[in-house]
Amino acid sequence: MSEKQFVTQIADINDNFTQWYTDVVLKTELVDYGPVKGTMVIRPYGYAIWENIQKDMDARFKEAGSQNAYFPLLIPMSFFTKEAEHVEGFAPEVAVVTHAGGEKLEEPLAIRPTSETVIGTMYSKWIQSYRDLPVIMNQWCNVMRWEKTTRPFLRTSEFLWQEGHTVHASEDEAMEETIKMLNVYKDFMNETLALPVLCGRKTEKEKFAGAVATFGLEAMMRDGKSLQSGTSHYLGQNFSKAFDIKFLDKDSQLKHGYTTSWGTSTRMIGAIIMTHGDQRGLVLPPRVAPIQTIIIPIAAHKGGVIEKAKEIESVLIKAGVRAQTDVRDMSPGWKFNEWEMKGVPLRIEIGPRDIENNQVVLMRRDTLEKQTVSIDELATAIPALLDTIQKDMLKAAEVRRDAKIVEASSLDEILKGVEGQNFVKAGWCGCRECEDKVKETASATARVMCDEEGVPEVCAICGKPAKHKVIFARAY
Amino acid sequence: MSEKQFVTQIADINDNFTQWYTDVVLKTELVDYGPVKGTMVIRPYGYAIWENIQKDMDARFKEAGSQNAYFPLLIPMSFFTKEAEHVEGFAPEVAVVTHAGGEKLEEPLAIRPTSETVIGTMYSKWIQSYRDLPVIMNQWCNVMRWEKTTRPFLRTSEFLWQEGHTVHASEDEAMEETIKMLNVYKDFMNETLALPVLCGRKTEKEKFAGAVATFGLEAMMRDGKSLQSGTSHYLGQNFSKAFDIKFLDKDSQLKHGYTTSWGTSTRMIGAIIMTHGDQRGLVLPPRVAPIQTIIIPIAAHKGGVIEKAKEIESVLIKAGVRAQTDVRDMSPGWKFNEWEMKGVPLRIEIGPRDIENNQVVLMRRDTLEKQTVSIDELATAIPALLDTIQKDMLKAAEVRRDAKIVEASSLDEILKGVEGQNFVKAGWCGCRECEDKVKETASATARVMCDEEGVPEVCAICGKPAKHKVIFARAY
Repeated sequence: MSEKQFVTQIADINDNFTQWYTDVVLKTELVDYGPVKGTMVIRPYGYAIWENIQKDMDARFKEAGSQNAYFPLLIPMSFFTKEAEHVEGFAPEVAVVTHAGGEKLEEPLAIRPTSETVIGTMYSKWIQSYRDLPVIMNQWCNVMRWEKTTRPFLRTSEFLWQEGHTVHASEDEAMEETIKMLNVYKDFMNETLALPVLCGRKTEKEKFAGAVATFGLEAMMRDGKSLQSGTSHYLGQNFSKAFDIKFLDKDSQLKHGYTTSWGTSTRMIGAIIMTHGDQRGLVLPPRVAPIQTIIIPIAAHKGGVIEKAKEIESVLIKAGVRAQTDVRDMSPGWKFNEWEMKGVPLRIEIGPRDIENNQVVLMRRDTLEKQTVSIDELATAIPALLDTIQKDMLKAAEVRRDAKIVEASSLDEILKGVEGQNFVKAGWCGCRECEDKVKETASATARVMCDEEGVPEVCAICGKPAKHKVIFARAY
Repeated sequence: MSEKQFVTQIADINDNFTQWYTDVVLKTELVDYGPVKGTMVIRPYGYAIWENIQKDMDARFKEAGSQNAYFPLLIPMSFFTKEAEHVEGFAPEVAVVTHAGGEKLEEPLAIRPTSETVIGTMYSKWIQSYRDLPVIMNQWCNVMRWEKTTRPFLRTSEFLWQEGHTVHASEDEAMEETIKMLNVYKDFMNETLALPVLCGRKTEKEKFAGAVATFGLEAMMRDGKSLQSGTSHYLGQNFSKAFDIKFLDKDSQLKHGYTTSWGTSTRMIGAIIMTHGDQRGLVLPPRVAPIQTIIIPIAAHKGGVIEKAKEIESVLIKAGVRAQTDVRDMSPGWKFNEWEMKGVPLRIEIGPRDIENNQVVLMRRDTLEKQTVSIDELATAIPALLDTIQKDMLKAAEVRRDAKIVEASSLDEILKGVEGQNFVKAGWCGCRECEDKVKETASATARVMCDEEGVPEVCAICGKPAKHKVIFARAY
């Protein structure tokens, strides 16, 4: 099969980005559709990315003082009504268990869409004194939010995520934790996913149901749309009052704690695909790539080629590289295409002539550049090159994004900006009507506020004095 | 608080084993009860054990050729009816989602009690040719089985587990996989949980709903009852026919595959508690203990004691030991009791006089033996001692168990055997009636068959010729 024929299996990334995404996630065997509408199966190649994400992120959480725990999947429906905004936000999306063990349940149970309510209930039982604070726990689990329109990784009825839930003695401490975890996420996305993210506070309209303030991490996809890749919420005393999380303070007063929550999900895999992918398919950052280096024997039938390839594989594995040799009975060209589509960061080609010259040909997936390297140097050259690729991918994504951030001073300019597949920065008066108008006119939403850059004088929508600088964009 | 006072917080292990278990799991903060009846919250100390189990087991699975994946939580109810025995076994325990997104669903959905049906459906889509086989996948997830009587770790409506699902081209290969994974479990339980287990085939009555043959791993608890700690099922073509898992074989014939499944769960934590625990509380095997060595400063207010303790902690952490210093403002005696209850394998006591002598006092949790060790030797002595404890705990549990395995040649002897808190080996004719009679008379079930030891001449229950040798026991 020629490369051209092979590539045509994936829709054109510029003509039809939506179809390109679907083709890529299915053909690289990251996911498949589950039998129930809106569900996905995460196949081994996709799940291995998630495992790498979990391992890296989990170490960062523990470093930040968090402990893992596990709370029940099922939550009594009545729990949701305890926090007024929370129930309004989540009740419409909930999947409900009404029968179990052959009987109708006395009270219907929700499959968790998020766990503030059940974790809050347990915290109220466990926390007595200021000595018990702060409480910082995280859980890795599945959650369910019933959605009308779904797409693998981006929006599915069930998804995998982590949710951190903390309790603090003071407002300041809780706000500090909220920002600290926002930065843990930001560092992780930069360093491990090579994902540049814009961080900032969300508007009232866009914040989490029940939060005092939500901070989001927004990444720009290849089509100029934004993907919310994580959120960190300062919940004030909303949940501690609703769930009675109280502690006896040093001054012998009984006080409500201040809580936070923060989460990221398998959605991040969607962000990786749509930030780094190209016409040939996936481009995976080395740190999360299930296979970091694929070794392709050339003229594999010739004596010694497969042996040498396997020898190099061993050397690389010993050097800490996730390396694999493709010994299948297929042409090298076919294998090149397949592993490029699957986004493996580095390819090693090795044939009889290379062995004679004690060298291999390397190809970088991100730049498609080739180079020749001595076999003796591979154990140091490959890890170094993987590091370089990791850093270069972040830089390249930053350059692409920064070229597509524009400023606007009218609704019309906001419309033109998002139609040109840009993030649009504009002054905003702070009122909901102007935010709604942007949504109606440009199908764009306020992603995050970036007041620290300096707030423009007037609102781009209504012309009244601006209170904030906002990034508007179309979003997944 | 004196040790006596402290110990009385836990029920007597000999007088009331059931209460002892409940006291231990709650007071050591392994778990708490969830708000929905029959659910549990796994608290950080308990979850850290599960994380250690997962990490060790997962590496063994990957070594055995398995890849992780994730399949949906919700399964259409109609899937269960496709395999006749399977639906009969699981339908009564299923929790059912009938409403979602504010609407009644067209078809009710089951929360997975196990995933043969949904994974089988996906396999039938993915598998085309003999080249695609074997398929060996595992998932770590939550499952739900609605139970009337529940106890933390042992039987809860929701629990965490792993389930492996494989497809093979031949009966032999599938049976080989079934036994291979049984042995992976056995090695893991021996080496990592210090748990001696009796492995063997289950009777028809006790096998998995839908299996051709189930192999179980049975561990003896302190009260002589058996805890099924894992199972490996040979499913033949039952599920491949029900879910249409077919492949084009080398001979160009379309054939049904042969499948297996195998699982272990958070139940194993219950097995650890009830195998190794004693009057003072938990005794954790070093390999899964969240804290392997607790360092207690004596006369901590004296200059240099806490500093030295922290220095030792660093040395041990560098040597790969999960070490922690207890610097809380409590008496050493109080701390001794608490960490003994929590089952930390090794305790280091260090006070001013020890520092003068360049030594520490060590106490082993399993034997309660004390010894003095030079501070300079700790980096090698502690890891070595943890290895010794790990091995000694397995040996001690084996000795305890083997002393409580008896042979019986009549129903009356079976009854006496189990009443004496033993495992009872007896000949069995193979008929269901005799099995039921043991259940009625002695409240014991056939745990596994051990024909390889030599089958007795007659059935201990009916006196007819015996076909099998069976281990009868009361079970959790």
